[in-house]
Amino acid sequence: MTGEKTGGATRVVMVMATIRQRIAGRSLTPGAKLPSVRSLAAALKVSTSTVVDAYERLVGEGAILSRPGSGFYVAGQAAPFSLVEAGPQLDRVVDPFWVSRQSLETSDDILKPGCGWLPSGWLPQQSMRRALRTMSRAEGPVLADYSSPLGLPSLRQLIARRMAERGMEAFPDQIMLTESGTQAIDLICRLLLEAGDTVLIDDPCYFNFHALLRAHRAKIVSVPYTPSGPDIEVLARVLADHRPRLYITNSAIHNPTGATLSPVVAHRVLKLADQFDLTIVEDDIFADFEHVPAPRLAAFDGLTRVIHIGSFSKTLSASARCGFVAARPEWIDGLTDLKIATSFAGGRLSSELVLATLSDGSYRKHVEALRHSLAQAMATVSTRLKALGIIPWLEPQAGIFLWCRLPDDIDAADVARIALERNIVLAPGNVFSLSQSASSFMRFNVSQTLDPHVFDVLGDALDTVRKPDFSQSGTREEFAAAGRG
Amino acid sequence: MTGEKTGGATRVVMVMATIRQRIAGRSLTPGAKLPSVRSLAAALKVSTSTVVDAYERLVGEGAILSRPGSGFYVAGQAAPFSLVEAGPQLDRVVDPFWVSRQSLETSDDILKPGCGWLPSGWLPQQSMRRALRTMSRAEGPVLADYSSPLGLPSLRQLIARRMAERGMEAFPDQIMLTESGTQAIDLICRLLLEAGDTVLIDDPCYFNFHALLRAHRAKIVSVPYTPSGPDIEVLARVLADHRPRLYITNSAIHNPTGATLSPVVAHRVLKLADQFDLTIVEDDIFADFEHVPAPRLAAFDGLTRVIHIGSFSKTLSASARCGFVAARPEWIDGLTDLKIATSFAGGRLSSELVLATLSDGSYRKHVEALRHSLAQAMATVSTRLKALGIIPWLEPQAGIFLWCRLPDDIDAADVARIALERNIVLAPGNVFSLSQSASSFMRFNVSQTLDPHVFDVLGDALDTVRKPDFSQSGTREEFAAAGRG
Repeated sequence: MTGEKTGGATRVVMVMATIRQRIAGRSLTPGAKLPSVRSLAAALKVSTSTVVDAYERLVGEGAILSRPGSGFYVAGQAAPFSLVEAGPQLDRVVDPFWVSRQSLETSDDILKPGCGWLPSGWLPQQSMRRALRTMSRAEGPVLADYSSPLGLPSLRQLIARRMAERGMEAFPDQIMLTESGTQAIDLICRLLLEAGDTVLIDDPCYFNFHALLRAHRAKIVSVPYTPSGPDIEVLARVLADHRPRLYITNSAIHNPTGATLSPVVAHRVLKLADQFDLTIVEDDIFADFEHVPAPRLAAFDGLTRVIHIGSFSKTLSASARCGFVAARPEWIDGLTDLKIATSFAGGRLSSELVLATLSDGSYRKHVEALRHSLAQAMATVSTRLKALGIIPWLEPQAGIFLWCRLPDDIDAADVARIALERNIVLAPGNVFSLSQSASSFMRFNVSQTLDPHVFDVLGDALDTVRKPDFSQSGTREEFAAAGRG
Repeated sequence: MTGEKTGGATRVVMVMATIRQRIAGRSLTPGAKLPSVRSLAAALKVSTSTVVDAYERLVGEGAILSRPGSGFYVAGQAAPFSLVEAGPQLDRVVDPFWVSRQSLETSDDILKPGCGWLPSGWLPQQSMRRALRTMSRAEGPVLADYSSPLGLPSLRQLIARRMAERGMEAFPDQIMLTESGTQAIDLICRLLLEAGDTVLIDDPCYFNFHALLRAHRAKIVSVPYTPSGPDIEVLARVLADHRPRLYITNSAIHNPTGATLSPVVAHRVLKLADQFDLTIVEDDIFADFEHVPAPRLAAFDGLTRVIHIGSFSKTLSASARCGFVAARPEWIDGLTDLKIATSFAGGRLSSELVLATLSDGSYRKHVEALRHSLAQAMATVSTRLKALGIIPWLEPQAGIFLWCRLPDDIDAADVARIALERNIVLAPGNVFSLSQSASSFMRFNVSQTLDPHVFDVLGDALDTVRKPDFSQSGTREEFAAAGRG
């Protein structure tokens, strides 16, 4: 019991986190009575005084209410901010962590129109098989050793050449390999952000940016995305009002909208960035899907205030993961130290496999075939969605995503919940939207939406939601019970 | 110029970081005059007022001095704490980032007695080659897909069985795969630490723990390590005085000392952990080098307040990196969210390769042969070092490290500097020591110390340092000029 008294502060925090998580995961809904102090203490193996402290602090935060003589109850509002909770919404289907987890769970009988990658059959498996056979005859260090701090020099040279083809100048020493594009952005946040710094994202944007920035305790502000880039007038206002340290965006093919940055908007974004001393992270992981290269912020800016991110997970393999970051030399220096401190060094094998696969001459053909297949899928899926009244916000020039509005202002989260019961993972709009203004939108990955069953289920779900007796709360409770909360 | 005025705070921070880095890298030594405001502003493309602000703040921090009418000068003391700098020392040879970078740079003509891994020829290359050929015939998803959130189920089952052999009970669902052991510890710090929390480490300990904890802005305290574990009396005092949130340690084979935790000390550590509500991270990446399993904290504790870390980089391959963390289910839940947020998901290939290599029946034989070779190397290297007056602190029961005291209180950093000029990377003691009390110690990796050239260079270096005209500062300056600073 001494331990409880002396070092109990962290236990109190753990109990608070447990309760917050239950609230966020909706196993405790607003108005629900919390477990008694005694029973929770027994369940979590902590003292009753720890639970009392935790409950009192949660009352202080407004997350729960105390009703003297009766017990503690969940307040009507969302749980307070916390790193590993469901986020600003109570609803796990629009929680970025949860959507990622659902998409990543592997099961053959699940369809995933909501995920962000191609079916494995679309990726260059013969080329990967060839590269694996080549590796099996490679020298010992290739099979056994860590990567060098910046990563495989010949792959960095190849990346520099590929960037040059898109108008971006970077020396190989300005390029650091990472495990993934996500790790690259994470390291940039570690280098450039302090807790409490403000970061700007697009609304809508890739939902994992929300999760990542929450992990960095960043304040997040957003700018609406238009078909030609961020809304410049709003951008100017947000920069003036909030002075964000970073802006994380996609240029070429925007996720989730499929929009393409126009040269005019790109130029204005960079002028504003200069004016407000903004650093821009340009996440360009969908580059190889493009038919015609769109303007890159990094090309205009020359890697002065733009940091450029790429990866091979989308067009080559997510199994042998490899990403990269190109930036100012002094930032690469700091990023390298941070990479070593937090992951020591990458494995050499993934980068060797990527290099072998990119160099064997078949990659360009593969990518061309992929663009063709995607264009066909885009047309097919677009037509079938329109037949259900699900209308694309724009017709993307390239890529895998269709950003669509559901008919009759139907809530996409309701549709996603119903579809999940039938083993289909969808991506409802608000998971991408900081302002939560995309409730009737949904992102479709056209390569994962070709199975006719998807459209049957979508049609059924729309019909169900339209019925006058459709009870949101009932479905939501079932959903919460089925979820991990 | 508006930008300078309005958003200049971050630029000021960048200028400060640049200067700190130059001081840390010794391109600016104590007493040296700083660049003029005008020339630095031009070089860094910032306004002069930004440089003036930065210089004034550095004066406020005591890093530099202002001499009115003359300019700014580097103060006599070490640069203030900063994330990506050389650390508390001015000397890059005892900077953990720098030692890691030197070790990881690949060049065939460099010998690395100071690194922490085996030569590639000691690792099971035939088994890796076989596994790569098997993978080349694997199903599409193995070649193309992300890992599931927790990672390959069959590998997690195998890890649970291996842990059981060492007395540790963990369900496969309590095990999450990571890219590396380092990533596992990093995620734990992200989950359990707030900036400014205190973390306890051993003195000496693995030098990258210093770098990692600095990246987390943690306060670091240490406990001296004895041949049977941490010094229990000091541990009790440090826990009472500093209330650390975490204790990061190795149980089985301690890095760098090669010491083994005794059951008595293990029990006392856990009692103190209970009393002070301490969470312990047990980094067990050298487990497979053991001849006889030593006690694990996780075995006694049952994964209540101990988190167990493992990896296959040391005995199998650092090229196909794969680590894991075993912990309480609710922590695994939070760690999984954090892994997704900060690296999305691991690649599937590394874990499939590790599984194939561990399951093909040859791994146990390989590890037995490895232990035998290491025991021989340990004896050979120990004898040769003793002949130079370099005396092991203890004779380790197993593993790759000999922690040795140099003769005549010679400064190991001096020896490391001289050896580096002759292409030999050593690991001087203070890089492992928070208290900087290991200046005449050095860690030798016996597998990387078998080349007779190492002992020639060591002998020469000791002779050089012993000479009455040996000028520390001269060598240091040459060294700094050769370094990356």
